[in-house]
Amino acid sequence: MAGGIGSRFWPQSREACPKQFINVFEEQSLLQQTLTRMAPIVPPERTLVVTHERYADLTREQLSPIPEENILGEPISRNTAPCIAYAAIKLRAMDPEAVMIVLPADHLVKREDRFLNILRKATVVANKPGALVTIGIQPSYPATGYGYIQYDPSESERDGAYRVRTFAEKPNEATAERFLDSGDFLWNSGIFVWRADAILENMQTHLKSTWRAFEEASRHLGTDQEDAAIRQAYYKSTRISIDVGIMERASNVYVVPGRFGWSDIGDWRAVYDLSDKNRHGNVLRGNVIVHDTSRCLVNAGKRLVAVVGIHDVVVVDTDDALLICHQNSTQQVKNVVDYLHAHQHKDFV
Amino acid sequence: MAGGIGSRFWPQSREACPKQFINVFEEQSLLQQTLTRMAPIVPPERTLVVTHERYADLTREQLSPIPEENILGEPISRNTAPCIAYAAIKLRAMDPEAVMIVLPADHLVKREDRFLNILRKATVVANKPGALVTIGIQPSYPATGYGYIQYDPSESERDGAYRVRTFAEKPNEATAERFLDSGDFLWNSGIFVWRADAILENMQTHLKSTWRAFEEASRHLGTDQEDAAIRQAYYKSTRISIDVGIMERASNVYVVPGRFGWSDIGDWRAVYDLSDKNRHGNVLRGNVIVHDTSRCLVNAGKRLVAVVGIHDVVVVDTDDALLICHQNSTQQVKNVVDYLHAHQHKDFV
Repeated sequence: MAGGIGSRFWPQSREACPKQFINVFEEQSLLQQTLTRMAPIVPPERTLVVTHERYADLTREQLSPIPEENILGEPISRNTAPCIAYAAIKLRAMDPEAVMIVLPADHLVKREDRFLNILRKATVVANKPGALVTIGIQPSYPATGYGYIQYDPSESERDGAYRVRTFAEKPNEATAERFLDSGDFLWNSGIFVWRADAILENMQTHLKSTWRAFEEASRHLGTDQEDAAIRQAYYKSTRISIDVGIMERASNVYVVPGRFGWSDIGDWRAVYDLSDKNRHGNVLRGNVIVHDTSRCLVNAGKRLVAVVGIHDVVVVDTDDALLICHQNSTQQVKNVVDYLHAHQHKDFV
Repeated sequence: MAGGIGSRFWPQSREACPKQFINVFEEQSLLQQTLTRMAPIVPPERTLVVTHERYADLTREQLSPIPEENILGEPISRNTAPCIAYAAIKLRAMDPEAVMIVLPADHLVKREDRFLNILRKATVVANKPGALVTIGIQPSYPATGYGYIQYDPSESERDGAYRVRTFAEKPNEATAERFLDSGDFLWNSGIFVWRADAILENMQTHLKSTWRAFEEASRHLGTDQEDAAIRQAYYKSTRISIDVGIMERASNVYVVPGRFGWSDIGDWRAVYDLSDKNRHGNVLRGNVIVHDTSRCLVNAGKRLVAVVGIHDVVVVDTDDALLICHQNSTQQVKNVVDYLHAHQHKDFV
């Protein structure tokens, strides 16, 4: 799933080249890292990438090992449920018993070996009839930026999967503390494993119009009607996430808990937290001079950046726009993008 | 006097175009403001500008009312004593009884009418034989960024001038408090009024080598030897300020105290303090978006600048360099320029 616009990463992330396509850690893009990470268990020819059609070229450029026909362009953004429906009908056509691993393209995983082991376990569970499996992250602090999954610790399955009791939205601080203390709440990673036919069956029950739209489209796969049929399916679908649309309503939902250095890298603060720092706690990239400065993330672009007497600030410089943001305010960068949209400054978004 | 390099105003002030030539308040340059301010009492044809010869063209461009021959280029920077000696021999050649008003080109004066009245008083005093007159600023707070002048309040002259007791260097905070409480200390503005022959006589006594060098050069004024002679004089002169070289040593020194909204605009903080602010205490120039931000000075260049969750910070963006500096650290901007010099980043200074 590579269709997001990453507005919390403005100004480096733009509509023309969002977060998943940029090198927030100066290596591969997050999308490329996701492909590389999965290579030991899923080869490129069995990897589908669903993205907005405007990013299809960018995706092809960045993911050259993936066959062109595996890059699925969405005509409009409709959140994750239609995206997953599209991939599911494609996979089912390739193999009626196909198991899907559903991954956001813009996450970070530090312990890739552990991560793949968790996915292997989840794949075994997902082969049980009708099972929907989600990957839960053992929380390390009372995060308010993630949704949570409560599981039933008494009902351990073989392979380390547990029955899910409930999904919870992003909590406030007190609730997050309670979740952490309870011991049976996990962070919702947004990573799922299931058979393509199982998720489509659940859509038939819980998201009927979306299901009907894609079942209709699936009859045209592989014909010259395919693009038009998919376009129709998207316009007929509901804009809803798979979590809200299916997971919160379905029975037979399992979670495999894991701890593998995961982050959804939700904002610049997360990039800072996950980066190697110098002895003053600074993360400095490009041509940067600092003086009496600590705990800053500075991404210089083409310009020299001098920072004097500044602490706990993120600086991101690009050719046409510059962001200066306190580490505690990085979630609010989205507001800047909203403002730019509202005031017709389209050049900058 | 327009020869400074204004390194505390990096990155807007560069060696190629220092502080006095830029529009720190978005109007005229400080140099142009200085000429305009003096126009009611000194016409352009009687104004000399002494600057480094590399700034002669820039000065001509900015000060078109001034005759070209009134722009005096210094071959090397030697602080204010040689600069004033140069102007003094030129003026004496034009009029042996000439009175000089010596003004730094990069100061701000908010009450120009009061300022001119003070200068008129000082000019009267300067006509007394041998008198050296300086303008002192009634201090409004215990500044540590200015030198001080102690005067003798018992010996008031007519025209509001007082005998100077002593000059004091920039004090520490405790001393500055004491100076303020004493009531007989003024800020040293670096503005002087005297007859050209009087300052040259004092140089003969207190700065003999500089005096001899310029007296030698003065014999070649108006000939085709003038430039070479002046060049020689500069190389033979001592690098010293007029304050240290003459004023602290001379007798017959007077001060005229005044209060006319003066600032030497020593750093970006001073620009912030002297600028009109919006209701959040921000001074925003150019294409700037702020969110949860207060008491900031933001000078956007050609780029959009977004500032989120930031307080008490100066941001100055230019084509090739960007400064982000806490309001309490603006004096340290000079260190950045020193660093750039030391590390051969000449393109940025």
